[in-house]
Amino acid sequence: MRIHGMDAIFNPRSVAVIGASSDPKRIGGRPVDFLKRHGFDGPILPINPKSPEVQGLTAYPSISEAPTTPDLAVIALPAPLAVQAVEQCAAQGVRGAVIFSSGFSEVDADGAALQARMVDIAREGGMRLVGPNCLGIANVRHNLYATFTPGVEKHLPKPGGVSIVSQSGAFGSYCMTLVRMRGLGVNIWATTGNSCDVDFADAVAYCAQDDDTRVIMGYLEGATDRDRLVEALELARARGKPVVMMKVGRSAVGAEAAQSHTASLAGADAVYDAAFRQYGVYRAQSVDEMFDVTYACAESASMMQGDRLGLVTVSGGVGVLMADEAEKLKLDVPALPDHAQKKLKEVLPFAGVRNPVDVTAQLVNQIDLLETNMDVLFGDGEIDGAIIFMSTVGLVADLNEAIRRGLERIREKYPDRPMLFCSLTEPEGRAAYEKSGFIVFEEPTRAVRAMAALRYFARSFARAGEKDPIPELSNLSPLPDGIVNEIEAKALLAEAGIGIVRETLATTPEAAAQAAQEMGFPVVLKIASPDILHKSDIGGVALDLRSAEDVRSAGARILELASEKMPGARIDGLVVAEQAAPGLEAILGVTQDPAFGPVVMFGLGGVFVEALEDVSFRVAPFGPVEARRMIDEIRSRKLLDAFRGAPERDIDALAGALARLSAFAAHHGAALETIDVNPLIVGASGQGAVAADGVIIPANRGGH
Amino acid sequence: MRIHGMDAIFNPRSVAVIGASSDPKRIGGRPVDFLKRHGFDGPILPINPKSPEVQGLTAYPSISEAPTTPDLAVIALPAPLAVQAVEQCAAQGVRGAVIFSSGFSEVDADGAALQARMVDIAREGGMRLVGPNCLGIANVRHNLYATFTPGVEKHLPKPGGVSIVSQSGAFGSYCMTLVRMRGLGVNIWATTGNSCDVDFADAVAYCAQDDDTRVIMGYLEGATDRDRLVEALELARARGKPVVMMKVGRSAVGAEAAQSHTASLAGADAVYDAAFRQYGVYRAQSVDEMFDVTYACAESASMMQGDRLGLVTVSGGVGVLMADEAEKLKLDVPALPDHAQKKLKEVLPFAGVRNPVDVTAQLVNQIDLLETNMDVLFGDGEIDGAIIFMSTVGLVADLNEAIRRGLERIREKYPDRPMLFCSLTEPEGRAAYEKSGFIVFEEPTRAVRAMAALRYFARSFARAGEKDPIPELSNLSPLPDGIVNEIEAKALLAEAGIGIVRETLATTPEAAAQAAQEMGFPVVLKIASPDILHKSDIGGVALDLRSAEDVRSAGARILELASEKMPGARIDGLVVAEQAAPGLEAILGVTQDPAFGPVVMFGLGGVFVEALEDVSFRVAPFGPVEARRMIDEIRSRKLLDAFRGAPERDIDALAGALARLSAFAAHHGAALETIDVNPLIVGASGQGAVAADGVIIPANRGGH
Repeated sequence: MRIHGMDAIFNPRSVAVIGASSDPKRIGGRPVDFLKRHGFDGPILPINPKSPEVQGLTAYPSISEAPTTPDLAVIALPAPLAVQAVEQCAAQGVRGAVIFSSGFSEVDADGAALQARMVDIAREGGMRLVGPNCLGIANVRHNLYATFTPGVEKHLPKPGGVSIVSQSGAFGSYCMTLVRMRGLGVNIWATTGNSCDVDFADAVAYCAQDDDTRVIMGYLEGATDRDRLVEALELARARGKPVVMMKVGRSAVGAEAAQSHTASLAGADAVYDAAFRQYGVYRAQSVDEMFDVTYACAESASMMQGDRLGLVTVSGGVGVLMADEAEKLKLDVPALPDHAQKKLKEVLPFAGVRNPVDVTAQLVNQIDLLETNMDVLFGDGEIDGAIIFMSTVGLVADLNEAIRRGLERIREKYPDRPMLFCSLTEPEGRAAYEKSGFIVFEEPTRAVRAMAALRYFARSFARAGEKDPIPELSNLSPLPDGIVNEIEAKALLAEAGIGIVRETLATTPEAAAQAAQEMGFPVVLKIASPDILHKSDIGGVALDLRSAEDVRSAGARILELASEKMPGARIDGLVVAEQAAPGLEAILGVTQDPAFGPVVMFGLGGVFVEALEDVSFRVAPFGPVEARRMIDEIRSRKLLDAFRGAPERDIDALAGALARLSAFAAHHGAALETIDVNPLIVGASGQGAVAADGVIIPANRGGH
Repeated sequence: MRIHGMDAIFNPRSVAVIGASSDPKRIGGRPVDFLKRHGFDGPILPINPKSPEVQGLTAYPSISEAPTTPDLAVIALPAPLAVQAVEQCAAQGVRGAVIFSSGFSEVDADGAALQARMVDIAREGGMRLVGPNCLGIANVRHNLYATFTPGVEKHLPKPGGVSIVSQSGAFGSYCMTLVRMRGLGVNIWATTGNSCDVDFADAVAYCAQDDDTRVIMGYLEGATDRDRLVEALELARARGKPVVMMKVGRSAVGAEAAQSHTASLAGADAVYDAAFRQYGVYRAQSVDEMFDVTYACAESASMMQGDRLGLVTVSGGVGVLMADEAEKLKLDVPALPDHAQKKLKEVLPFAGVRNPVDVTAQLVNQIDLLETNMDVLFGDGEIDGAIIFMSTVGLVADLNEAIRRGLERIREKYPDRPMLFCSLTEPEGRAAYEKSGFIVFEEPTRAVRAMAALRYFARSFARAGEKDPIPELSNLSPLPDGIVNEIEAKALLAEAGIGIVRETLATTPEAAAQAAQEMGFPVVLKIASPDILHKSDIGGVALDLRSAEDVRSAGARILELASEKMPGARIDGLVVAEQAAPGLEAILGVTQDPAFGPVVMFGLGGVFVEALEDVSFRVAPFGPVEARRMIDEIRSRKLLDAFRGAPERDIDALAGALARLSAFAAHHGAALETIDVNPLIVGASGQGAVAADGVIIPANRGGH
C-alpha cells in the first residue's frame, strides 16, 4: 500500500502556496484566499518572488527562504517552473505537493517526460505528489482547501463522513457541490488529475484507512495499476467502508478490435462492471443513484443484514411499485407470517397486512399506530429493513413530530435494521427528520434502490472473510513461443487441472485403431497438420467411430483426402480423441484487459454468446465460490439446471474449471494473449466437464 | 366514444353538494369549503335536510327544493342514501354526479348489485357518474374542486396543461401535490374509484379532446373495456397529447396459471407493456420518470423530430455519462460533420467538438459563446435536440442571465428543436429559467431520459397516420367445438393465409407412397390417430423419406408399431407431409388476456422462449408494420439477420404471418382460447415461412 506520506498532503500542519497571487480570483490566489478565509489552522506561507505580501499575509521569495518548512506545498506555476519548485521543495524537506499546473502528460510526449522527471525528483526526495493538471484537494474537518475550484468560494460543505475521490476535477467539483447542497457532510475531497504519483487507488486507500470516512464516492476514468486498485478496494471492504463508483463509458464497449472471438466481446466496460462486483464496489448508473447510495450509506446506522424487505405505505399503488422495484433488485418482499398479520390486523383493522403493508390514509387519524406497526414488522415479521412511504404526510408538521418520536423508539429497539422514510417534504420538514438521524427519500423507487445498495454492501462486507481459495497450480510448463497447436493447448490446460478429452497422436490408420482400442470407443479422428486449420472443410474429421475397423478405414480416407485436397501440407498423422459424452456446451475464455490484465469470460453455447452476448467476466485469479457467482450472472443460467428433460449440470466442475483457468491465466500474466476453451462440455451433476477444443495464443507469437 | 355529458362533470355551471356538512374537515364539508374558498364561479348548493345553512351558504333539504337544477351533484352520503340521491338528481335533470361513498362493488356482491342499480338509474336519466369510492375530481382553471382530498386544503396547483387521471385516489392526490410542488400547472384532475360509469378510458378521452390539456398523466390499475381504452389512447395520439402512464404490478407477472405453454408466458403485465407501446403510451417505471416526462412534454415547444441528439457539457465525464444513457435509450449521439467541428473549433479552440461537445469550464469566461455553439450544433450539425449540462454554473445568477438571453435567441431560430438545460440550481435560478420557458433538469441522465420520451412521442404521433392495414380475411370457417386436431388446425391457419407445410391423409402405405409422389420428395410420415398424442414416443414419425419405396416401408412399419404399442387406438391412417426446407424456428401464439382480449406472442426457437422468456406481444389485430416492430423487440432478433453463415430470414413472410394470425384471433375473439404455432419455419429471404405444427384450442372445448 502506498498511503505512506499522504498525511502530509491531506492533514498538513502548514501549507505553502508557490505562485501565490494577490488576486483571490486567480489560480494562484484562490488557495491563499480559501485557506485564510475558511480558517486553516496552521501557518499559510505564500511564495512569490515579486511581492513581500500576498492577500495580507507575509510572502516569501522562495521556499528556502520561508521561516518554516511546510508539510504541504500547493504549486500554481507553469509546468517547467513547477518542476523546479518540486525540486526546491524536496531539497527543503517538504513532504507533499499538490500541483495544479497543466502542460504535462495530458499534452504530449515532452510533457510526459517532464512529468516523469518531476516524479523522479519527488521520489528521491521522499515527497508525495497530487496532480499535476488537477483541481486540488480538501480536508473539510481541518478547513484545508488546497484547491482553486470556485465550488468552495462561497459555500463550504459541513464536515461529515463522505470522502470524494475523482480523477476529473470538473466531476469532483460537481460532486462536492451536490453533496453540500443535499446536506451531507464531507471528509476528504481529492482530484487526482494526471495522477503522476498519488492516483485514484492511493486516494481511495487513504480514505479507507481514515476513521472519519464513512463512505467513499469515486469517479474513475481508467485504472492504471490493477494490483493497487484491488488492494485499495479490498482495504475499503475490510474496513467496512462502502465505495460508490461512477465509471462512464459503457457505450464505448467493443471499440477495440481484437482477433480472438472472446476478445471481441471483452469490452473493457463489461470488465469494469465485473471487477466492481468482484471487489464489492457499487457502480452507480446516474448521478442521482450515486448520491442516493452515498447518502444511505453515510447516514444509515447499519447495512441491511438479510433479504427481507418490509414495505409500509399509505398508497397501495406505491406499495406495489416499490415491490416491483424490489424484485428487480433481488430483494425479497415476503408475506408476513400469519401471527404477525393477525397482530397487525388487530391494531390496524383497516390495513392490508400482507406486505406491502397498506396502512391507508386512515393511519393519519391514529398516527401513533405507526410505531406499533413497525414493531410488529421488525419483531414478529423478522423484516431486515423497511421503507415507510407516507405520500404527502411529510408535508404536515405536527404529524411529522409524532411519526419521528415513534420511529426513534423503533430505531432504538432495532438498531441493526435500516429504515428509510419516503414522502414529499418541505425543506424544514426534511431537515427535522435528518436532524433526528433519519434518511428521507422523496421518490419510492429511489428508496428501494438505496435499500438494495445497503444489502449489496452487507453481502460484500461479509465476503471480506470468505473462504474461497484460488486453486494452487504447480509444475506448469512455460508457454511456448508462437502458435500453440490444439494438442499442446489441451495439454497445458490439463496441467492446470482442467478436464480435457483424452487424445493421442497416431502416425498411421493402424496405429490410430490400436490407440482407439486402448482408449475405448467411440472415438473421434482428426487430421493432425500445422497447415490445415479448417479440418472439417477437407473432410479431415470423423465422428462417432465405434470399432477398430471403422477407425482404420476412416483414418485411411482422411489421409487420402488431405493429400488430395492439401497436397503441400505437412501431415503429422491422426489425432485419436475420446468422444465426450453429450453435455451442455460452455465457452471459457481469457483476454488481456488494458486495465485489469488477464480476465476470464464465461458463456453458454455459441448462439447465446454470439447472438445475445450473454457472458460474464471476472478478473483473474479467483476461487470456485466467486466462479459460481460468475456463472449465476448470465441470463441463460437456467440451462444449467434440470431443463426441458435434460439433467442438472455439473456446476461444481464448471466452477472449478473457471477458477483453474483463472489461476492459469494469472500465473502466465502478460505472457498470455488469449485462451479460448470452446466448447467445454459440461456433463450432468457429478459427471465433470471436459474441454473438447482449446486455443492458446501467447503474447509472443513468434515469427509466424 | 363515451365523453358525451362529461362537461356537466368537469365544467359545470353550478354544483350541489349532497350530504353537505358544516364541518369543513368532514368528507361532506370539504367540497363546500373548497368550492367556496377557492372561488368556484357559479352557484354552490349545499343539500342538507337538517340545516338551512352550511358554512355560510344557504342549504336546501333536498335537490328538488334547490332554487336551480345544478349541472353537477357531489354526493357524500352512505351507499344506500347515495343511490337515492342519484335517483332524485336524475328526476330533477341533474346531468352529472361525483360519488365519494364507499360500500359498493369494492366491498361485496351486494355492494356491486347496489352499484349496478345506481348506474341503471343514471343511464335512464341521462346522467354521468364518477366514482363511487373515489376522491373526486377537479378543474383547476375553473376553480372546481369536487373532492375531499386534503391535498388542496392549503395549496392549489396553478392552472396549466397537465391533466391527471387516476383510478386510485391516493395516487392521484400524490400526483397532484407532486406536480404542484414542482411548479407545473394542472388542468383536469380525475380519480375514478370504482369507475361505475366514467372510467379511466372515458376520463382520458375527455382530457384528450380538451384543448387546455397538453399532456395526460395516468395511473391505471386494470383496464376493463379494451376497445374503449384503445379508442381513448388513439384519440390522444391523434390530437398530439402525450399520455404518460404509471401501471404497477410488474412483479406479479406469471401469477395466473394457464394450460398452454404460450399462456404461461403471457403474463398480463407484459401485455400491458406491449399494448402501451402499440398505442403510443409512455410507461414510466418510477415517480421521477413519470414526472420528468410529463414536465418535458408539458413545457417543450416541440417533440424531438429525429434521432440526432447533441450533448453540450462543461464536464467531459458527464458528457460520456449522457452519451451512455442516450445509447441505452436508442438515441443517436452522432459525431458532428467536419465543417461543423471546424467552425466550433474556431470559436471554442479549447473545446472538444465531436459530440458530446465539451466546452470545459473555460466557457464560463466567455459565456456568450454558448449561443454560437448552439447555433453551429443546430445549424451545421443538424441536431434534432440538445441537452446543455452546465454542472454548477446554474448557481451563478449573473451567468444565468447571459445564458438565458443566448438560448432564447437560439430557441427563436430553431423552434422545433427541443433544448433541455441541466445544472444544479437554487430555486430562484431555476424559476428564472422556467419563467423564460426553459426546461431545467438537475440530473443529466434524467434529462436524457426526458429527451428520449420527446423522441418516443414524436415517433408515436407520426404513426397516427401510418398505413398499416390489418389483413382482411374472408370465408373463414367457424371454430369447431372441442379439440381441433393438427390437420384441422393447420387447415384453419391456411384459411387465414398462413403458410403451412402441405400434407394429406392416406389410409394405407401404398396410398401414402402415391401421395408422396404427387407432393414431391422428401416427405415426413406420421401416424394419424386421435388417441396417440406423443407420436414420436411409439415410433410413429419418419423423417426425410426420399422415395416411394421408403414411404411404403416406413408406412408399414409405423402402422405395425402403432398397433403393437397402442393396441386400442383408433387409427385414421398416415399423414404424409412435405418436409419443410430447413429454416429458423419461430413460435407464434395467441392467448386471451383478461384486459386486452386476444393477444399475439412471438419468439424464436424453443430454448430462447423457455430459457430466456425472450418473447414480444401485441394486442390483436394489427398490420405487418406493427408486426415488424414486434419482431424487432426480442433480444435474439439478430438471429433473423444473416448470422453465423445462415442467410437473412424472410422477415416479410414472418411479419405477414403474425399480422394474419392477429386478424384471425380478432375475428374469432372470445371463441378462441389459445393458438400455438410451433414451429413456424422461417426460410431465407423470399422463401416464405410455413407452420410445421399448430394447436388451436377453442373456448368451447366440448365434452372432452
